[in-house]
Amino acid sequence: METANLLKQVEFIKEVDKLKYILRKTKLLNSDRNENDAEHSWHLSLMAIVLAEHTNFPIDLLKVIKMLLIHDIVEIDAGDTFIYDTQKSHDNTTEEREAAKRIFGLLPDHQANEMIAIWEEFEERQTNEAKFARAMDRFEPLLQNVSNNGGTWTEFGVNYDQVYAKKQVIQQGSNTIWQYAEELINDSVDKGILKK
Amino acid sequence: METANLLKQVEFIKEVDKLKYILRKTKLLNSDRNENDAEHSWHLSLMAIVLAEHTNFPIDLLKVIKMLLIHDIVEIDAGDTFIYDTQKSHDNTTEEREAAKRIFGLLPDHQANEMIAIWEEFEERQTNEAKFARAMDRFEPLLQNVSNNGGTWTEFGVNYDQVYAKKQVIQQGSNTIWQYAEELINDSVDKGILKK
Repeated sequence: METANLLKQVEFIKEVDKLKYILRKTKLLNSDRNENDAEHSWHLSLMAIVLAEHTNFPIDLLKVIKMLLIHDIVEIDAGDTFIYDTQKSHDNTTEEREAAKRIFGLLPDHQANEMIAIWEEFEERQTNEAKFARAMDRFEPLLQNVSNNGGTWTEFGVNYDQVYAKKQVIQQGSNTIWQYAEELINDSVDKGILKK
Repeated sequence: METANLLKQVEFIKEVDKLKYILRKTKLLNSDRNENDAEHSWHLSLMAIVLAEHTNFPIDLLKVIKMLLIHDIVEIDAGDTFIYDTQKSHDNTTEEREAAKRIFGLLPDHQANEMIAIWEEFEERQTNEAKFARAMDRFEPLLQNVSNNGGTWTEFGVNYDQVYAKKQVIQQGSNTIWQYAEELINDSVDKGILKK
């Protein structure tokens, strides 16, 4: 049984290596190199550890980290969707649900079910853990775009209202981080790297 | 106080972005693209979650993940050292300790101390968590080298005895994973991708 599980787990571990090839729209800090989903997931997980004291409520940190480590795995099949893309929906599409079934389905049943449940919890944004994980996912690209003179905002003509609406999700996870994020957004307008 | 902490934490979060540029010797699975330390840390953390049932002893999984997310951060200053390099020591060198002090030292004191302690615990390999984390760190490049027809073993002329000695560390974390790893090593000899 142990060995049967291990063989399945190794297949999963090999499959998710592909996350290292999925490029996001945002670039690394002060850089023109696109970030990939594996690096992004690492960074958010570490951010969650470091910023956990700023949550609005108690959280199960291990669960938040599990969410962040796996939240983009469906993009191996479904690809990265740009957050400001108005043509294509981002969240929990049929394509993403199929991807979750296929990729997490490589694991032994009990683990596949746990991973799919955690991924769905992240997508549904209702629990404390999902809210805080989401806040991390919105905060990192804000730091990146500010460091890159507007980054994807400039590149794709995204304006203040669009950014503000997307970033406000941070507040659901942490008032303290949101206060800081809001200042960054306003400063970006003042600096001319984000258009009102 | 909250805000003072946050500003320090953001500096740390920005600094560790550099881990995405530190290239390891090993390549991604079935690939000639070098893995970077951030991707590697993500992969090991996820492996620890998925493989936790195979530990030889009870572990604090959150601590293992913290170790794996931060274990290579010192390489931002100290660089990656090849595991089979006989010229240069790998573990807890003066250079690495200085790096730990500088980089984790960006955080508020209580967090800096916690991170340095966790990094040292990983380096010292005595606790259950450190042993299991180490097992992950040895297991991933084994999968990579096998998938790449010998990978760094072939590229740098590393032989069976050297590989066996380094990989045996896996057993301290998990007998089950070691049994599987040992088979992979022996199969590699049979296939001619690892020289006895």
